[in-house]
Amino acid sequence: MNYEKLFETIVKKHSFLCVGLDSEIEKIPSFLKKRKDTIFEFNKRIIDATHEYTVAYKPNVAFYESSGAKGWSSLDSTVRYIKDNYPDIFVIADAKRGDIGNTSKMYAKAFLENMPFDAITVTPYMGEDSVTPFLLYNEKWVVLLALTSNKGADDFQYHNEDGLKLFERVLSVSQKWGTINNMMYVVGATRAEMLINIRKLVPEHFLLIPGVGAQGGSLEEVTKYGLNSKCGLLVNSSRGIIFADSSVNFDKIAGQKAKEIQVEMEKHLRQHSLI
Amino acid sequence: MNYEKLFETIVKKHSFLCVGLDSEIEKIPSFLKKRKDTIFEFNKRIIDATHEYTVAYKPNVAFYESSGAKGWSSLDSTVRYIKDNYPDIFVIADAKRGDIGNTSKMYAKAFLENMPFDAITVTPYMGEDSVTPFLLYNEKWVVLLALTSNKGADDFQYHNEDGLKLFERVLSVSQKWGTINNMMYVVGATRAEMLINIRKLVPEHFLLIPGVGAQGGSLEEVTKYGLNSKCGLLVNSSRGIIFADSSVNFDKIAGQKAKEIQVEMEKHLRQHSLI
Repeated sequence: MNYEKLFETIVKKHSFLCVGLDSEIEKIPSFLKKRKDTIFEFNKRIIDATHEYTVAYKPNVAFYESSGAKGWSSLDSTVRYIKDNYPDIFVIADAKRGDIGNTSKMYAKAFLENMPFDAITVTPYMGEDSVTPFLLYNEKWVVLLALTSNKGADDFQYHNEDGLKLFERVLSVSQKWGTINNMMYVVGATRAEMLINIRKLVPEHFLLIPGVGAQGGSLEEVTKYGLNSKCGLLVNSSRGIIFADSSVNFDKIAGQKAKEIQVEMEKHLRQHSLI
Repeated sequence: MNYEKLFETIVKKHSFLCVGLDSEIEKIPSFLKKRKDTIFEFNKRIIDATHEYTVAYKPNVAFYESSGAKGWSSLDSTVRYIKDNYPDIFVIADAKRGDIGNTSKMYAKAFLENMPFDAITVTPYMGEDSVTPFLLYNEKWVVLLALTSNKGADDFQYHNEDGLKLFERVLSVSQKWGTINNMMYVVGATRAEMLINIRKLVPEHFLLIPGVGAQGGSLEEVTKYGLNSKCGLLVNSSRGIIFADSSVNFDKIAGQKAKEIQVEMEKHLRQHSLI
């Protein structure tokens, strides 16, 4: 999927919501656990209930790997189900991979060739040759970690050389490796006003924002500082949607939660004259 | 496996060789490709031929993931085969994982609980809470990336704050998270004399050194600057051993290559009075 197509979908759906399919098997409603492929059955129902409000899905690979080979099958079935049924939805493998060149090439093959993911999250620590093998696929994307939203982000990401923090260096240097058409950045929104400076470094790129709640100020702040002329944001919500309820109606509730966020997003898109 | 036991194995085998099982399916001798589980059959024969000279194996997970769920089964069979047959050998999942806390916990479960790996390589970018979930298992290890041996290491790992490079900060800060009994570091040996300063920061820790050739000066330099009183080094060789030959005798040749390195290592261990 290219940049224009992604923006078209955002405009069409009045949403820039990414639903995180962090489908931890222990948290899946118990009545689904007798199924042959519990994780896939859960995802399928979540996807059918939320697709209308969603422009992207982001399965975090850890929750699949923790079930071994079976989990990999569930992941594979999930991405194929989305692409077969909702082909305009962008699907990100949240895998945080990265290794030396010939090894990253194997990871790229796993996610972008053998499975129909549109994008994969990549960690920048090992530099250019660890990232570029993921950029060799037409209309596929790298979502590079820049600033994460966890506490540990403070340990290294703010390491400061002559006024340039590590995450800013990642944003700056990596722009030589890809384009706005094949690279996005993970930017944690713990302090939304940081997006002012981040947007100076990457005005046009899409940013994937984790950890924004369903309601309240945070989405407002993120859009205020983060939106650009092509939206340029994917805002992720995981547990707040997929595990909002554990009854037989879990999917219906997930759909309602997704809709609530979409309605909020629609408001911001209008305020910024993007729709 | 604990620190003392690892050192005992090194002393017993006169070796600190780690064999990298980067078992790329395209490079496996063609006569093995009719087997039901090609990668595992290849690994099994490599392991049987090299175990005598080896204290550690390190499958790089990318080469398994690129075969999807089937590859995960091969990885699982491989680590179980090593642990069942050669229980004193240390097995490292070269996975370079790392995510927010509850997600890293899932990766830890995948490799240290569901599979009997002794250790997993972890990337430091996301800081403390991305690393500590891997440290909760008794006698299991984190091998944290500090300085890698690829070209891209220059992009961020030397980012310098007040005289402290990023990889040095990783070595320094992360010592608060683990101990010499559950944390090692990946240190690329492109410039062996850098080990002088690295040893000042981490005098006692084990270091995993990638990219040292079978012969010549590099192993000599690495041991000169890197050995400590408990050896403190695992030196990895992958393709130089496992893909040294592609005939029906590939395993025998792999064994010879491993032995050549072991003999060289034995010499250095004697020179440094460790055996």
